[in-house]
Amino acid sequence: MTNDDLRLAERLAAAAGAAIRPYFRAACSHETKADASPVTEADRAAEAAMRQILAVERPNDGIIGEEFGAERADARRVWVLDPIDGTRSFMTGRPSFGTLIALLEEAQPVLGLIDQPIVGERWIGAVGQATRFNGAPARVRNCPDLGQAQLATTSPYLFSDAGLNSFEAVRMGVANTIVGGDCYNYALLSIGQLDLVIEEGLKLYDFAALVPVVAGAGGVMCDWQGQPLDQHSDGRVIALGDPTLLTQIVQMIGRA
Amino acid sequence: MTNDDLRLAERLAAAAGAAIRPYFRAACSHETKADASPVTEADRAAEAAMRQILAVERPNDGIIGEEFGAERADARRVWVLDPIDGTRSFMTGRPSFGTLIALLEEAQPVLGLIDQPIVGERWIGAVGQATRFNGAPARVRNCPDLGQAQLATTSPYLFSDAGLNSFEAVRMGVANTIVGGDCYNYALLSIGQLDLVIEEGLKLYDFAALVPVVAGAGGVMCDWQGQPLDQHSDGRVIALGDPTLLTQIVQMIGRA
Repeated sequence: MTNDDLRLAERLAAAAGAAIRPYFRAACSHETKADASPVTEADRAAEAAMRQILAVERPNDGIIGEEFGAERADARRVWVLDPIDGTRSFMTGRPSFGTLIALLEEAQPVLGLIDQPIVGERWIGAVGQATRFNGAPARVRNCPDLGQAQLATTSPYLFSDAGLNSFEAVRMGVANTIVGGDCYNYALLSIGQLDLVIEEGLKLYDFAALVPVVAGAGGVMCDWQGQPLDQHSDGRVIALGDPTLLTQIVQMIGRA
Repeated sequence: MTNDDLRLAERLAAAAGAAIRPYFRAACSHETKADASPVTEADRAAEAAMRQILAVERPNDGIIGEEFGAERADARRVWVLDPIDGTRSFMTGRPSFGTLIALLEEAQPVLGLIDQPIVGERWIGAVGQATRFNGAPARVRNCPDLGQAQLATTSPYLFSDAGLNSFEAVRMGVANTIVGGDCYNYALLSIGQLDLVIEEGLKLYDFAALVPVVAGAGGVMCDWQGQPLDQHSDGRVIALGDPTLLTQIVQMIGRA
């Protein structure tokens, strides 16, 4: 991973945003067929725009995208693309969805970018570097007491029954829980506005970009056993601003 | 209610936004004492700014505010102020909270304004007029089939047990449910991005401003029995983009 990769990721995000913006809040009728909904069209246009740049700039790197699948997925370097994380938010006109771009090297996320193209907010993280939010350093906040923590999750309806039990065990111990948000929750955690995000059912393209953003801001992102996230993770994730709480949270989840 | 009242409401929103913006994402430590948190400070500063203008411009009108209580609440005309609707969203750095301003005449909401001062979005509705979103006409969308509806609620954790049963009965019948959002859900409904919002536990200052916004865009806002909302409502509200679904929804809620 080089600074040139960081600059390329920003160009990918800019291209995705330009492809997405015309579709945001564009249709407000139920007439549109499901397989050609504005969100699907925006998703495809944005991923195609990013793939076009990668084909020219990084012809040997692999690509795993939400819309168009995998190419050279066994390459040493693989770009992971989720043009619109937060489909429901996009569909209902909320500017809290995000474009997610990650670079894996040997299956480990080494670069991550979260872009909100309507409001104009961008987070970028890379191994060994401080995460930046619109160019300025991003930093998690301390929260050594779980009882003071602000917890977020996109929706309680996205958990399995067993997963919901674990989530509820933690929720009972925090100060407040806020729902909704998608990738934006992890972005807010990286600037010290949230302390904890717990989710289940995430795909590689949902979480790969988040890991370097959270880690580069001083937080930790891992699975429900406290293990690092990689290509083979089961989609159950914890993001934590203050790593000192990790053991306690993993225990609460395990006992539930 | 006159056009002068509409212009005054916009001045109130501008003053509230100017008071609020410096506090948004300003603190990211847990050190701050609860009674002087940034959200409380922003709430108070914004309501004080609005009251100062009303004292000069409408000295005989009543005021009911979330932060500083009631003055002349029995006046024929009463301004209802909620400087920050969506306290949790504000606290966690989400630009989806809103400033709510309503004018009641003889206890009926005749003017309503929803302002999002970070992103710069404003909805204004008034009896007998088309709702406007950033100056352009706002319009709900048709949704004659509940199975196609996009439903929103701020949080399932805000319902009573009985209320949650009713909400779940409706949720099982819709296409999708999105959580989070506060007043922003009603604003999105008025521009045809959502079809239905169901909530419980709202205070007068939480819903008074929403009623003219939704009604002026062609929707309907009422309580869980389908009755109009006024100063004495029990805080259980339905907002519906397509009024043809109202009877069905009220029946589903009643049977649950």
